[in-house]
Amino acid sequence: MQSSEKRQKAIDLSHHLSDLSRARATSPLKGLARYFGRPGLISLAGGMPSPDYFPFAAISGDALVPESFSVTNTQSESSLSWLWKLFGSNRKEKTNNITIPKFPEHPDEVNLATALQYGTATGLPQLQKFINNFVKKVYQPAYEDWTTLVQTGNTDGWSRAVLTLCNPGEAFITEDWTYPSALASSQPFGIHPVGVPMDSEGMRSDELRTLLAGWDEAARGCRRPHVMYTVPVGQNPTGVTMGAARKKEIYEICVEYDVIIVEDDPYYFLQMGAYVPKDERASQASSLDSEKWISSLTPSYLKFDYQGRVIRLDTFSKTIAPGSRLGFFTCNPRFAERLERAGETSTQAPCGFGQSMVAQLLTTWQFDGYARWLHGLAAQYKARRDFMIDALSEEFKLKTSLGTTGSWRGCTIYTASPKPLRRALEMSEKAALLDADGGRPYFSLVPPSAGMFVWLKMHFENVRGFKEGDEDTLEMKLWTKIAEAGVLIGPGHYFAADEDGVSPGEAHFRMSFSFSSEEDMKKAMKIFGATVREFFENPE
Amino acid sequence: MQSSEKRQKAIDLSHHLSDLSRARATSPLKGLARYFGRPGLISLAGGMPSPDYFPFAAISGDALVPESFSVTNTQSESSLSWLWKLFGSNRKEKTNNITIPKFPEHPDEVNLATALQYGTATGLPQLQKFINNFVKKVYQPAYEDWTTLVQTGNTDGWSRAVLTLCNPGEAFITEDWTYPSALASSQPFGIHPVGVPMDSEGMRSDELRTLLAGWDEAARGCRRPHVMYTVPVGQNPTGVTMGAARKKEIYEICVEYDVIIVEDDPYYFLQMGAYVPKDERASQASSLDSEKWISSLTPSYLKFDYQGRVIRLDTFSKTIAPGSRLGFFTCNPRFAERLERAGETSTQAPCGFGQSMVAQLLTTWQFDGYARWLHGLAAQYKARRDFMIDALSEEFKLKTSLGTTGSWRGCTIYTASPKPLRRALEMSEKAALLDADGGRPYFSLVPPSAGMFVWLKMHFENVRGFKEGDEDTLEMKLWTKIAEAGVLIGPGHYFAADEDGVSPGEAHFRMSFSFSSEEDMKKAMKIFGATVREFFENPE
Repeated sequence: MQSSEKRQKAIDLSHHLSDLSRARATSPLKGLARYFGRPGLISLAGGMPSPDYFPFAAISGDALVPESFSVTNTQSESSLSWLWKLFGSNRKEKTNNITIPKFPEHPDEVNLATALQYGTATGLPQLQKFINNFVKKVYQPAYEDWTTLVQTGNTDGWSRAVLTLCNPGEAFITEDWTYPSALASSQPFGIHPVGVPMDSEGMRSDELRTLLAGWDEAARGCRRPHVMYTVPVGQNPTGVTMGAARKKEIYEICVEYDVIIVEDDPYYFLQMGAYVPKDERASQASSLDSEKWISSLTPSYLKFDYQGRVIRLDTFSKTIAPGSRLGFFTCNPRFAERLERAGETSTQAPCGFGQSMVAQLLTTWQFDGYARWLHGLAAQYKARRDFMIDALSEEFKLKTSLGTTGSWRGCTIYTASPKPLRRALEMSEKAALLDADGGRPYFSLVPPSAGMFVWLKMHFENVRGFKEGDEDTLEMKLWTKIAEAGVLIGPGHYFAADEDGVSPGEAHFRMSFSFSSEEDMKKAMKIFGATVREFFENPE
Repeated sequence: MQSSEKRQKAIDLSHHLSDLSRARATSPLKGLARYFGRPGLISLAGGMPSPDYFPFAAISGDALVPESFSVTNTQSESSLSWLWKLFGSNRKEKTNNITIPKFPEHPDEVNLATALQYGTATGLPQLQKFINNFVKKVYQPAYEDWTTLVQTGNTDGWSRAVLTLCNPGEAFITEDWTYPSALASSQPFGIHPVGVPMDSEGMRSDELRTLLAGWDEAARGCRRPHVMYTVPVGQNPTGVTMGAARKKEIYEICVEYDVIIVEDDPYYFLQMGAYVPKDERASQASSLDSEKWISSLTPSYLKFDYQGRVIRLDTFSKTIAPGSRLGFFTCNPRFAERLERAGETSTQAPCGFGQSMVAQLLTTWQFDGYARWLHGLAAQYKARRDFMIDALSEEFKLKTSLGTTGSWRGCTIYTASPKPLRRALEMSEKAALLDADGGRPYFSLVPPSAGMFVWLKMHFENVRGFKEGDEDTLEMKLWTKIAEAGVLIGPGHYFAADEDGVSPGEAHFRMSFSFSSEEDMKKAMKIFGATVREFFENPE
């Protein structure tokens, strides 16, 4: 890492601002702000109620302890179930009470008089302080004057970013398969995605260069994209994760072609390494210290961002709770100021109940406690991923191979085909006779290295009676059968960056292992298995 | 009121939807939603974390009791200061604890497993239920199929509404003086306000008709406005309130010219009646029952809305706390669906900490308790308004007259001029000699009948050495002198709907009585008084 003396400030990237962003006022507070904080100043300027009228004298929370989840356990668990076993305590989560009074004893305590008042869109100072320290330690931005700004989750973050950077009619770069809400935020404004092919690390740098170098403005009907939306860790929906070398390559291409990178990274702390089949899995007593675990994670784009061209989006949705509706930008101060103005006309500051609870939790836990909490969560998600793929391996014969072409180049692919015995038992005698060539695969998957999802590539060409061009119909047909049987999964076409750009013959499903109990996951995989096997024999 | 049998459904107003709103997807959940809630369904479709991973076992709040503030008291107070006096209890707010567990004992209890999860943009069911009942009882919409939808405060509400209804280049109708953030939300999108002159009840219906009837598309450069933004109660910044008859007139004009009314009503429950000078004020033992007090309030536009052309914006910012970032729309179901889609790409649902705290508070208080709380608040704001104007009357000679023309037609106007004795004492001998015509007014005001603000119309023509055209310069000059002396107020030009449309010679200040203690307000009025008096003699 460069020393702070040597680091440079962000370069001027103002030419990326959209017309909408330029049209926003400098600040609605205009001349007033310079008087704020003057000793003895009496403000009759705003429409602020007296805090006496806030109907809460205090709020508090029973906060789980940071070590609520084991970092070595290989089963998903309720919080502290492993601690119950360890200490034989009763079936209650281990908690500490945190309290936020309306009026603090010391002015720098988190308090409701401030948190429940109108606040600037920069959020509570205690939260901002924690976030700044966290970004500095964990992501280590490569330039000096980076800043952070709270938002209400990464959907809000991307919405604000894309409207701050793009004009109607423009295109932005993204992965071939991507998060549907990111598209829902931009498309109504006439801002369109252009997908880049992927491999085992996500977006391919060679494909990105080809796209940018060969951009034909006339044929495409718009200028070369100057914005990229990417989910580089536990990519949604594919589950792949990008390493440092690829990020550096892509960053340099973005420097060359002057592209702003919007790094949406909700799954950063759900990195879980490679899947190891159940019978090869050693008891994983990886008792890394949590801070060391954090430094072992793949770096953020920020670490290579010596120019300030990355807008990183972090959210507390996956690490605290989705309902906290709280996250933050890390970016250069010019963009941050524009993003703040954009926030002022929607939600203003994030909710003060949420901000104060999260701020108090994090300042109580401190950096080390939060690192330990994240470490425990990562172990939980790893156990959940393993459980889901283990359960699939009970339903199907999973055979591994190394991907050599296409989006799974370089990946260890698990291909699911019938288990001979089960197949014989379930199939009618006639079908068994017809199935002379047996064992043709149903689907393939690459186990995710981070995140919440298993992404299945369906081999519908093996469906009995298949005709070319059937894939889309078959995707929704099978999806409906699975739903009717009681299991809801994500149909692949929801995640296509550009439905026209998806190769014909590609059909997918996305299955989440983040929510259900092991019992439900097992049951769901049984239903899924039976429905798929039946469908491949009899798709009508 | 019409009986519910006779009431009609909303008419089709879809032609008002903007291109942006039409371009939004039907729902990102598409086909999935029809399976939600099926018994036994296992969902692997979303990216929801297990609630086991939410780091709070419970949250709770020390909630003030609904009768924390007297409904008859004429002094602003800390909560329960009047109860201390009554019962001689210690200096603590009287509270009851409310708790929200992660996992509820009964499924219809407010709980964190739901509130902190991803939720639909329609919010927590318990909150929605309370809100629906409240709207039905208090606002009594005149059509059958009205619906409500949570948002994150009225700035978000108006932002969503204006983009749902207006295309770039269009104009919307508003009062000549209005809330600056409403303009900041629309102007960057090229959607412009057109001000309508006001009187003692706010927007004038005759002026509205003239504007609409005489709209010259060619001269104005855009189609006739089809959307109105209005703050009909405690109008910001002027403080005037519109009665039932005027609302009916305006509603009928909007039917005739097919205009959608966006009713932004944050100050509805801060209605406080006319100001009575201190020495004429009887001890106001108006001990109305709180529910009767609510029915005595001026009706909402909803009460006259037999077609479903009103989008009403309610916020908890002034009645619970600004930091709750929570409010709701009441409107027809077609608009509600579009507004919901618009919310999904920004904050999604409002924060779950805030939603659950407010929902639990309101369901604990119930309708009667909340009505009592609002009643107490209204009495507080009335006391605060009276205190500020009383304090002005100590600084200036306030003379009443009846307005006959212009924006104060029909109002009781208080005109502030020098108090002879004070003036003589403060002025230099020379100035006193020059001031042969003494007593020329400094400013006029109409005491607000609702809300948080006193709006002063400055008589800068009486400033020594005044020349025509000086008003704008003088407004900021005096504003700066007052700020430098330690009091921050709102400069009038911030509130101009259309700066070009403001008559030359109009200069104003807005002073808020919502926040400061009586001691600070008194001090601020003294500083204001001295600075104004000095300025009118010596504006340099």
